[in-house]
Amino acid sequence: MSKPLTLQALAAELGLELRGASTDVPLVGLATLATARPDQLSFYHNPRYHADLRSTQAAGVVLRPEHAADCPVACLLTDNPYLAYARVSQLFVRASSTTVGVHATAQIDPSARLADDVTVGANVVIGAGAVIGTGCHIGANCVIGDDCLLSDNCLLHANVTLYHGVRLGKRCILHAAAVIGSDGFGFARSGGRYHKIAQLGGVSIGDDVEIGAGTCIDRGALDDTVIGTGVKIDNQVQIAHNVRVGDHSVICGCSAIAGSSVIGKNCTIAGAVGVVNHVTICDDVTVTAMSLVNQDIDTPGVYSSGTGLDVTGNWRRNIVRFRQLDDIWRRLLRIERREGRRD
Amino acid sequence: MSKPLTLQALAAELGLELRGASTDVPLVGLATLATARPDQLSFYHNPRYHADLRSTQAAGVVLRPEHAADCPVACLLTDNPYLAYARVSQLFVRASSTTVGVHATAQIDPSARLADDVTVGANVVIGAGAVIGTGCHIGANCVIGDDCLLSDNCLLHANVTLYHGVRLGKRCILHAAAVIGSDGFGFARSGGRYHKIAQLGGVSIGDDVEIGAGTCIDRGALDDTVIGTGVKIDNQVQIAHNVRVGDHSVICGCSAIAGSSVIGKNCTIAGAVGVVNHVTICDDVTVTAMSLVNQDIDTPGVYSSGTGLDVTGNWRRNIVRFRQLDDIWRRLLRIERREGRRD
Amino acid sequence: MSKPLTLQALAAELGLELRGASTDVPLVGLATLATARPDQLSFYHNPRYHADLRSTQAAGVVLRPEHAADCPVACLLTDNPYLAYARVSQLFVRASSTTVGVHATAQIDPSARLADDVTVGANVVIGAGAVIGTGCHIGANCVIGDDCLLSDNCLLHANVTLYHGVRLGKRCILHAAAVIGSDGFGFARSGGRYHKIAQLGGVSIGDDVEIGAGTCIDRGALDDTVIGTGVKIDNQVQIAHNVRVGDHSVICGCSAIAGSSVIGKNCTIAGAVGVVNHVTICDDVTVTAMSLVNQDIDTPGVYSSGTGLDVTGNWRRNIVRFRQLDDIWRRLLRIERREGRRD
Repeated sequence: MSKPLTLQALAAELGLELRGASTDVPLVGLATLATARPDQLSFYHNPRYHADLRSTQAAGVVLRPEHAADCPVACLLTDNPYLAYARVSQLFVRASSTTVGVHATAQIDPSARLADDVTVGANVVIGAGAVIGTGCHIGANCVIGDDCLLSDNCLLHANVTLYHGVRLGKRCILHAAAVIGSDGFGFARSGGRYHKIAQLGGVSIGDDVEIGAGTCIDRGALDDTVIGTGVKIDNQVQIAHNVRVGDHSVICGCSAIAGSSVIGKNCTIAGAVGVVNHVTICDDVTVTAMSLVNQDIDTPGVYSSGTGLDVTGNWRRNIVRFRQLDDIWRRLLRIERREGRRD
Repeated sequence: MSKPLTLQALAAELGLELRGASTDVPLVGLATLATARPDQLSFYHNPRYHADLRSTQAAGVVLRPEHAADCPVACLLTDNPYLAYARVSQLFVRASSTTVGVHATAQIDPSARLADDVTVGANVVIGAGAVIGTGCHIGANCVIGDDCLLSDNCLLHANVTLYHGVRLGKRCILHAAAVIGSDGFGFARSGGRYHKIAQLGGVSIGDDVEIGAGTCIDRGALDDTVIGTGVKIDNQVQIAHNVRVGDHSVICGCSAIAGSSVIGKNCTIAGAVGVVNHVTICDDVTVTAMSLVNQDIDTPGVYSSGTGLDVTGNWRRNIVRFRQLDDIWRRLLRIERREGRRD
Repeated sequence: MSKPLTLQALAAELGLELRGASTDVPLVGLATLATARPDQLSFYHNPRYHADLRSTQAAGVVLRPEHAADCPVACLLTDNPYLAYARVSQLFVRASSTTVGVHATAQIDPSARLADDVTVGANVVIGAGAVIGTGCHIGANCVIGDDCLLSDNCLLHANVTLYHGVRLGKRCILHAAAVIGSDGFGFARSGGRYHKIAQLGGVSIGDDVEIGAGTCIDRGALDDTVIGTGVKIDNQVQIAHNVRVGDHSVICGCSAIAGSSVIGKNCTIAGAVGVVNHVTICDDVTVTAMSLVNQDIDTPGVYSSGTGLDVTGNWRRNIVRFRQLDDIWRRLLRIERREGRRD
């Protein structure tokens, strides 16, 4: 942001209608309805914050036209305030101090090819044959293996590790300590011990993929592990070898997808979900938090497992009965049968 | 420890009563009751080790007065042996070989301000405007973003990543590969794809917080993610954007706290627990291992979910019945109703 | 692989019988039955791919003698095709561009002892008193603490952190961002706050252990945390202080083993399993995915917990009944008692 951003300028930039008493005060940032000051913008999307809307002191609020009457300050009208918020938020990203260019301490193999305008941080290591596209930004202390391909405008935060042969599409964002291309967990057991199976595939990642901090994606055993276009993966997710994730699916934090499983397009895998190996999940499936997917899912919908939370004293009694549940079922059937004979 | 530590010296240092036949042998370390040699100290706290107490060969044992009669060697008496053990353990920490000072390979932005006595390891990168307080120790290969604040006496082990604008209180300890300040997982969906919401908040961490290896704490979307004073977080914990954790709470390994949830003070979140988003947990709550908190908790107490472990053959039969549980309930009610009519 | 590898050469190398129409085409790689080209080898092990066997275009297939009749191309016969595949896979591992030797940017304490032939990547830091055996390969940006011991032929990928006093057996493989030797999570509570217990033990790891990306193994409180010979640990596993894992056991991704627990030999801990603290699991136990082990297991076998997956609508009804399960049990007993009185 080089010049001051007023409500009028913002409305023009986003193509939104500005309604109500607006000011020329330059906007200095975004804030929640409850905390916004008169030089900050806010947005209204979630009904649980309706009281905050009525009392906000923001310079203006992005909201749906039907809520304008409840807003005491200027309104920016849109049918999708959350999307408008996403767009506005990008205008307030602070620039990093990092200078464009390759840091003197970076260790780059002579055979690697870097576009002219890439940013390479301190202590970065780039292997032989790697190709780094235009506009890429590689954070400090990243290690990029041989023959990796970073398409244009990728952003790697600090301490990311790419093993050899990892391919990223355009505009991918990888957060700190992510590891892509580590060996799949493959062993053949013989004679009471495990023999390592070399993992000869790679990892292929589509355009516009975001990968969270500490997330690991293993390379394929033979073919590639494949992450589709527009997939968003949160922190500390584990994706095993040969997995395929369909376009525009979302995987939330701490989920684990075991080997050779397939997740369809437009799926939402909530946090701490487990998917066992060799399972196929069709398109448009949502799995709720901490569920275990231990079978194929071939019908779109919402799926869950677990027991729900309870006070531990009650829970202890109930888990004893859970272990007797099949017995309970059989005794119930016997009662019904005896009733039938009596009637 | 510069001079030899005898039992007498230790008793004086900790203000404990020394009882029984003590020796002048310098203590070389701490050990369990079962393995301690005559130049090592031990402690007795957990009744499961009572037999070990009776046969220990330690130089001395830290214990409660009522157990002194069962101890064959010298006793150091205290009402809280576990606390005394914590204090004694600090006396036996080995010094690191790291020299105080800034390593020649560290890359420090000229605008960063470091106290005179800080230790900065090899290949550390410190961004513009960062402030590093007195007595801080930053391990090798850490990356510290612009405008971070490390208050006095923080210890960062190797390979830690702090994004920009992370603030640590005094005496914080961050273990290797921890990531603080990564982007929260926020997207607006429109037109079948996800649009990134810039994460404009920071992370604010109180005094005396310890953060485990590989743990990730995301920055807030607008306001800060906040970790209270004295909070202890184990390895591989995921804390999403906007979460607030109250003072003196503990979060054990592999737990995941989803976005905007609030954990009260003095809570204990056991290992591998999941907390869904927008949940509030009041003060003084314990959640047992691998439970899912999918609703607010407004009463102090102990909470659990899950089924308890079983032999897989039985378990398979019971999970079939779990899916019929509501049907079982309804059939049971119908039987009771028919009984009522018959009587 | 310096010279071309034909089917004949491969059969000789592995001591397998070659049957059927073989060619002299040099093999360029391994592939699945469905995707293999005429210059690639494949293998048949899992019956789910039987149709692919019948139509494969591979140069040859490694399989059991009884399946040779179904194979349209040359066969390499063995009783354990999966093991043969593991061995063959090693022949196709691509060489890294890394030159043998110590990179100029590595920071190695003068008191560390390195064998002549070790490879040390860029920006590696090695502490005082560390010993690195012959044939070891240490990836870029690793940090190795004081007094660590790497026995011969260990491979550390990039960004691994070893705290001080970690001992690795021969031929260990550690993947990127693994952390070994971080402090155990030990505190004594007193006066409403937690006091840190210094973690004075180390970590002792046997021969032929593989440790996945992002996995953390804490040092012991007093004695060592111990990982047995031949143990294979997947990505993002958390192993707490004082844990002991028996020889040739396997721990899959995202599992968490809490403090002082003991896992026997030849166990298989599937993905996302939790083991609470102070639990003992005997030899030859399998725990299925996402189960919680909250009690000792003293009989070999297969163990599980959880509810199995369901459509969320049904699941919501059933978890309500789960909280009434003990009540259901009691009402069932009362009906049976009343029946008994009536009869």
